[in-house]
Amino acid sequence: MKARRAGDAGSGQIVISIHNEPQPTDLGDVRVANRAVVLRHVRLHAPCSRADIAARTGLNKATVSSLVSELIDQRLVRETGLTENRVGRPATMLVLDGEPYAALGLQIGVDELVAVAIDLAGNRLLTWRRAFTAAAVGPTETMRALAAVTRRAIGRVTAQGRTVLGLTVGVPGLVDPAGAVPLAAALGWRDVPVAADLRAALRQPPFAVGVDTVANLAALAEQRHGTYAGTADLVHLTGGPTVGAGIIAAGRLLRGGHGFAGEISHLCLDPAGPTCLCGGRGCLAALVGLPAVVARLLPDATADGPITDYLPELERIVALARQGDPTVLSGLAETGRQVGRAVAILADLLNPQVVVLGDHLATLAPWLLPAARSELAARSHAPDAGGCRLDASTLTAAAALGGATAALATVEAGRLPALT
Amino acid sequence: MKARRAGDAGSGQIVISIHNEPQPTDLGDVRVANRAVVLRHVRLHAPCSRADIAARTGLNKATVSSLVSELIDQRLVRETGLTENRVGRPATMLVLDGEPYAALGLQIGVDELVAVAIDLAGNRLLTWRRAFTAAAVGPTETMRALAAVTRRAIGRVTAQGRTVLGLTVGVPGLVDPAGAVPLAAALGWRDVPVAADLRAALRQPPFAVGVDTVANLAALAEQRHGTYAGTADLVHLTGGPTVGAGIIAAGRLLRGGHGFAGEISHLCLDPAGPTCLCGGRGCLAALVGLPAVVARLLPDATADGPITDYLPELERIVALARQGDPTVLSGLAETGRQVGRAVAILADLLNPQVVVLGDHLATLAPWLLPAARSELAARSHAPDAGGCRLDASTLTAAAALGGATAALATVEAGRLPALT
Repeated sequence: MKARRAGDAGSGQIVISIHNEPQPTDLGDVRVANRAVVLRHVRLHAPCSRADIAARTGLNKATVSSLVSELIDQRLVRETGLTENRVGRPATMLVLDGEPYAALGLQIGVDELVAVAIDLAGNRLLTWRRAFTAAAVGPTETMRALAAVTRRAIGRVTAQGRTVLGLTVGVPGLVDPAGAVPLAAALGWRDVPVAADLRAALRQPPFAVGVDTVANLAALAEQRHGTYAGTADLVHLTGGPTVGAGIIAAGRLLRGGHGFAGEISHLCLDPAGPTCLCGGRGCLAALVGLPAVVARLLPDATADGPITDYLPELERIVALARQGDPTVLSGLAETGRQVGRAVAILADLLNPQVVVLGDHLATLAPWLLPAARSELAARSHAPDAGGCRLDASTLTAAAALGGATAALATVEAGRLPALT
Repeated sequence: MKARRAGDAGSGQIVISIHNEPQPTDLGDVRVANRAVVLRHVRLHAPCSRADIAARTGLNKATVSSLVSELIDQRLVRETGLTENRVGRPATMLVLDGEPYAALGLQIGVDELVAVAIDLAGNRLLTWRRAFTAAAVGPTETMRALAAVTRRAIGRVTAQGRTVLGLTVGVPGLVDPAGAVPLAAALGWRDVPVAADLRAALRQPPFAVGVDTVANLAALAEQRHGTYAGTADLVHLTGGPTVGAGIIAAGRLLRGGHGFAGEISHLCLDPAGPTCLCGGRGCLAALVGLPAVVARLLPDATADGPITDYLPELERIVALARQGDPTVLSGLAETGRQVGRAVAILADLLNPQVVVLGDHLATLAPWLLPAARSELAARSHAPDAGGCRLDASTLTAAAALGGATAALATVEAGRLPALT
């Protein structure tokens, strides 16, 4: 709807493109852009022939041939043994080459470290989850453990003969442009230079080491690999002790001026509500975060002292909900209403096509969604919530998967890997 | 911070570019893109020479010469009589040609119709404001009046020998991609085909007729012409009976899946607050919208019946505030706190570099801003509000100015005007 052209006098809403910094373009940029077009076509439509690519992308056949040769040389694309029978000579079919490369995603969770590796086509090469309480052991020990997991994952894919294209670490907190974490309330962290520490621990590896919020990375995974893959305007809500919003707007992550966008934990839904870690009252996290939900639904859970591992409690809630426990069901409906109120604000402000719930909100979705959807419909301003759907994620280890996906971005943008 | 390149292994936060639809690129696109680069350079740095453009943009001199010749032929750029003395022969200086073209912006306000025309360089050619109560007369009569104002503005600039490049109408409500208004609560409108009606009234003019929300257009004007011009992440809050958020993220208007983004009027700040037109309680509009502010600060204002024109009441509030009236001052501080709470939510979710207050919120800014800024600092999660400043707009007729600016977008993107 936004791709209108000049002279289209019949259009209603016209293109408003604010060129902050239009960049001069040259033939090299054209080649990079067209390489991205070819790679994307192969990713989405493999197996496909050179002629298919030319026909479907509008690039001429000679350009496609030249680009494909280069991509084959770089082992980003390979020919399959298959051919397609056509009039004339049979066409050789192309697929992304899944062998030579890997991208890694790591996630520092509140109670686990996660590592995911994928190949260029997005196939998972490994998914590791290791119980780990980062908040309890502090940043130094956490970074040491993260580096160990990362080295092991790099070792695994390298032993398969793969070159690592990059890695991205997801952190549940604010991440600045240098890859440092000024604040991660869920971990009790302040000013931890995650990217710099990890690069040092890996002895300045030849690939990019990125850091991003778990919310951003989970949104990226959702947009690429989830039920709503390909949706241009999508929000993923991460769960756990806090709640994060990974916002994809017009196909791109919305980061804001300093990279701090997507903080939704402290949205005040009830000025008279329970106290939040931040000192406020009735924040979204204090109402629908995992500890808040456990405290509401399982008031006896802390009888033996503070909870250190929420997974068993979450499983108990699911079991009680399945049994139809009325207290648990009404507590989940109330939680769903609060989720719905927050989603209605997102729908009004951002008008996404879908909001996807992750983590414990996804686990509890069968009981949260009915109330949440009603609240969304009732409270959002645009008719039919502006077309915003609300659903649960089906991905596991979404943030780590998103981290690995993010690490493929430069190659997918048409830049050739810097081989060592 | 986002313009990292492949192979920049030292980067922290890496580029995450989700190419939903990378488009094949050819030499024509390169020329369009480079034309945009040259036009922008002249806009920002005029008077400047061809050599300056080449030196500052990185384009080679032959390309610049060729593009400039074409832009002069199209009368988008002209040579001034001035030259700059350099070693060697003097350089001829270039400026945008302000003569041959005009772009129009119209605004349907709650109590006025506004028209602004600008030339290619953004100079205002006319600013007309006409008192008009669209809500009272209904859509048919309003569209008739709008068409009349538009025809007169077109006549005025055409009589100056200008070609109209396009026009954009701002509406205080939701706008769909076809330029229709499904809902404009402030006007009491539902399903008004604004773009289609105006095109018909203008007998299908040869230029684009766009429609957008006043919030989006005001944000565009702010980003181009306001105190914070050039800021990549900016939110403009429009005032009046409702409040709208025009969101610019990474240099582009955030529209959402159906174009309905930026609805902030019904953000609930106080579940026990006053009733809103939408049926909810304690919505932002019901707390800081102009009628709400007048009702709070001037409880006697409705003694003679409902208010139809808020301007005199707004002036009375300003006069009383200047006199130091304690009731008015404390009411304004309370309004400021509520504005600050809403801005804190925007700061957390979107992390803009600045939020700019427009309309009555700008008029009242001297008394609102201190409390609003305190609340923003106290309630936003990131340290120092994530770098988000809060200030008042200095623009008049911002939405109409933004409409005219939007109408220049295709030419500014490097596409040559379709001359008739």
